[in-house]
Amino acid sequence: MGKPEIKTVEWHGDSVWLIDQTLLPAQLAIVKCRTVAQVAHAIKSMQVRGAPAIGVTAAMGVALAAHLAASACAGHRSGNGEAAVHAAVDAACRELGVTRPTAVNLFWGLERMRSVAEELRGTGTEAVAAGLAAAAEQLAAEDEATCRAMGRHGAALITDGDGVLTHCNAGALAAVTYGTALGVVRAAHEAGRDIHVWVDETRPFLQGARLTAWELQQLGIDSTLITDNMAAHFMSQGRIQKIVVGADRIAANGDVANKIGTYALAVLAAHHGIPFYVGAPLSTVDWDVPDGAAIPIEQRDPDEVTHLRGAPLAPDGMAAAHPAFDVTPHTLISAIITEAGVLHPPLAASLAAVRPAAPAGDAT
Amino acid sequence: MGKPEIKTVEWHGDSVWLIDQTLLPAQLAIVKCRTVAQVAHAIKSMQVRGAPAIGVTAAMGVALAAHLAASACAGHRSGNGEAAVHAAVDAACRELGVTRPTAVNLFWGLERMRSVAEELRGTGTEAVAAGLAAAAEQLAAEDEATCRAMGRHGAALITDGDGVLTHCNAGALAAVTYGTALGVVRAAHEAGRDIHVWVDETRPFLQGARLTAWELQQLGIDSTLITDNMAAHFMSQGRIQKIVVGADRIAANGDVANKIGTYALAVLAAHHGIPFYVGAPLSTVDWDVPDGAAIPIEQRDPDEVTHLRGAPLAPDGMAAAHPAFDVTPHTLISAIITEAGVLHPPLAASLAAVRPAAPAGDAT
Repeated sequence: MGKPEIKTVEWHGDSVWLIDQTLLPAQLAIVKCRTVAQVAHAIKSMQVRGAPAIGVTAAMGVALAAHLAASACAGHRSGNGEAAVHAAVDAACRELGVTRPTAVNLFWGLERMRSVAEELRGTGTEAVAAGLAAAAEQLAAEDEATCRAMGRHGAALITDGDGVLTHCNAGALAAVTYGTALGVVRAAHEAGRDIHVWVDETRPFLQGARLTAWELQQLGIDSTLITDNMAAHFMSQGRIQKIVVGADRIAANGDVANKIGTYALAVLAAHHGIPFYVGAPLSTVDWDVPDGAAIPIEQRDPDEVTHLRGAPLAPDGMAAAHPAFDVTPHTLISAIITEAGVLHPPLAASLAAVRPAAPAGDAT
Repeated sequence: MGKPEIKTVEWHGDSVWLIDQTLLPAQLAIVKCRTVAQVAHAIKSMQVRGAPAIGVTAAMGVALAAHLAASACAGHRSGNGEAAVHAAVDAACRELGVTRPTAVNLFWGLERMRSVAEELRGTGTEAVAAGLAAAAEQLAAEDEATCRAMGRHGAALITDGDGVLTHCNAGALAAVTYGTALGVVRAAHEAGRDIHVWVDETRPFLQGARLTAWELQQLGIDSTLITDNMAAHFMSQGRIQKIVVGADRIAANGDVANKIGTYALAVLAAHHGIPFYVGAPLSTVDWDVPDGAAIPIEQRDPDEVTHLRGAPLAPDGMAAAHPAFDVTPHTLISAIITEAGVLHPPLAASLAAVRPAAPAGDAT
């Protein structure tokens, strides 16, 4: 489309560069993380968010740990340089693994890096560091290819004239580029379909108002911002024909954890007979989790509900709850759009049919 | 409960005093309206909101118009003083009648005053003005009695240990005092029932976060603030046993127009098997409107969605929609709590059974 593509996260040899998503849309600023602690902070504070983006960022954080350890060793003639790199990789995996609990892509990304580090064991300090950097970049490249494949598969579900509702941000900013659920919308638009996107603002973090709205403007796709509580009204008015959302973790039976508010949309969609689609890469599937009840739901600071940009919205001392995600049962999901194609119910079976073979390292 | 009662709106002989609800909870300030234009502005800008409060405020605006016209005449010896008062009443009804379209209590309040003015025709300038002031004060007193009656009837629906969800503000601030839906919650609390209130923040105006949270704090009732999109999650977790909301207009068949987001809650309640109650005085019933499709839905400025306290939430130029209300079909409503008792389905019949006799003036 002529415009430069958004790169949410990039590996720069000695640092991880991220778009600071807490500042959008007012400011498009890059955070340059030069330590693992900075990467961990970026994930925890939601400077970077979105399941695929978190997975790739964590992987780059591990590559950064290896790079820093290898650089520190380079000046010394000590014989245990590679051991120091592996120790740094392990420490980084631990530090990054406790940043956010729900999106499984984080653990998937760390596991991929741990497995690459194992494969490279014995090849020497520089080779391990270089190999991990290459692996992180490969993950980023795969993520883009995966999003584009999801877009191709999912676009077929979107019809000319559709009003498409989305929640939170499952766009380029939630991945390395292009996006998952919003990638499907984008692909339908690029295929020439006349669509209108309804953007849930997505309280409390306003990822819809701040990020999805901004992306749709960049892409030149017609859209209308609404508060989350308006979605049902526009469904009842016949303005919404499809709902497409992302996912933070998908259980083996097809239950989906995604941004708080997703479950409500799925119930409302069923009531109105509107197809409800989830767009997510297979890296979002947690094959070890049988159903949604076993997915840990992150409880964030209630101040994020009672305050906006530091200013109080409620009276002092008001108690608030802040579950950051909810679980949508597979029975309410019309299909899951993945890079392997559109998976239809029964989702347990259609997910199992496209389950990737376990990489060699997974046997450990 | 010992604390001074909130008086949302009060007649002060030569002015209408209102709590400025746009400033709560940061500031408890009184607006003193000394002209009809100031009253109209207060309603339009939502310094005063809530269907019953709007109805009483509009009535007081008419009393103010009559008072001002009578005072202006008092200095003159012209013979047409009473005609000037009636003309002022008519002008006030026109000006106040176009402030907000959805809450029928506004038109009901104006109609009551118009009818009183007719009854007083020929009694003289002072008598008309004094009669209208008395009528407005009577409306305020009736509103309080009505709310307390609703509380008594509705409290029986709330069980010890209930989690009760409410949306927007249907509390003392939405009426003259005590409240409608929140009056039911309050009455249950005063009856000694151990309840927990879940407060939808209610975007975009945040009446829940700002007003309902504040009232519940004043009343010492346990409560938790949530974003609107969390309600379904807590329903699925078994934390919510009852939903009680207010109404801005009820059609003769029991369809209910209320704050945007109400309809979504009703659908979600039905999905989870949770009773969904509407608390509203009979003045909220529009007997001339057969069903919800005929209720006009106010479309407010989209800037109220894209901005909060003047600060942008979305990128510049983002289109937004702002329907201020939605319609919940009667089929999703478990009961309507009125001053005449709890009305059960079929709502068309149970509403008709308690329809007040038309006052004499209505025949014209």
